[in-house]
Amino acid sequence: MPDIRHRVAMSAPLESVYGAVATKEGISAWWTRDGVRGEASEGSRLGFYFGQPEPAAVMEVTRLSPDGHVGWSCVEGAEEWIGTKLSFDLTQADGETVVLFTHADWRSPSEFMAHCSARWAYFLLSLKSYVESGAGTPFPEDLKF
Amino acid sequence: MPDIRHRVAMSAPLESVYGAVATKEGISAWWTRDGVRGEASEGSRLGFYFGQPEPAAVMEVTRLSPDGHVGWSCVEGAEEWIGTKLSFDLTQADGETVVLFTHADWRSPSEFMAHCSARWAYFLLSLKSYVESGAGTPFPEDLKF
Repeated sequence: MPDIRHRVAMSAPLESVYGAVATKEGISAWWTRDGVRGEASEGSRLGFYFGQPEPAAVMEVTRLSPDGHVGWSCVEGAEEWIGTKLSFDLTQADGETVVLFTHADWRSPSEFMAHCSARWAYFLLSLKSYVESGAGTPFPEDLKF
Repeated sequence: MPDIRHRVAMSAPLESVYGAVATKEGISAWWTRDGVRGEASEGSRLGFYFGQPEPAAVMEVTRLSPDGHVGWSCVEGAEEWIGTKLSFDLTQADGETVVLFTHADWRSPSEFMAHCSARWAYFLLSLKSYVESGAGTPFPEDLKF
C-alpha cells in the first residue's frame, strides 16, 4: 500500500522534538492550535480539531517511546485516513535531530493523498520552526493550499 | 515502485504555472537560481545546478504540452534518481491551478527518498509563491533541511 514519507532535519535536541510530537501542548504549536483533545498516552485517543465542532481526525496512540518514537493509528476522520498508520521516528546525527515521518497504508495513491503529502511536509517545516525558534505555523495560521 | 506525489493549488492562471515549469527562466525562479542549462524542448536535456561544477541532475524532457503537462526522465544525477520519472500535471479548478507533481519509480522507499519528498513539497510551495507573488525561494535562497 502507498505511503507518505518525509525526512526533515531540525537543529534542536531530540528531547525537544519528542515533546513536540508526543504531547498535546507540543502538537498544538505546530499542527493545530484549534484543539488537541483527549489523552496523549499509549492506548488512549487524541482528537484533532480544525475549526469544526467535530475532530478532523481521531488517532489511537500506539507508541510513545522517549528514545524517539511516536505512533498513531487513525480510527476516525476522512474515509481515506481510517486505518492508516502514522509515525514519527527521531534520530540524532551531527548535532541535529532527524525526523522521519511516515503516514502509511493508504488504500490508493489518490489526489487527496497527494494533497496530504504536501500538507504534512508543510506542517513538518512548522514543527522545525517551532522547535528551533519557538514559533510554528499551525492551523489556523497555516498557509492554505 | 514507490512514488512521491504532491498536490498544491495555486492562485494563478494555468499558462503562468505552465511557463514556470516548462521554461529554464521559470524553473530557475523556484527550484535553482544557480543554473538550468540545456534546451527546454521535447527530447532535449536540461541540467540542474546547485552550487557545484557538475549538475546535480540531468533530465530528458519527455513531454511539453501547453494544456498543462510537463514530463522529465532523469538520466544523470544521484544514483537513486537515475531512471525515475517526474511530471507536473496542471488542471484548472475554481479559478485556481492545481499542480499534481509526481516523482515516480523509485527503487525503494529509502530515507533519501523521504528527504527528497519533503524537499519537493518545499520547492512546490516556492513555485506557488513565485506564480502568485513573483518571488520564489529557489536554491541558494532555500531553507536548508
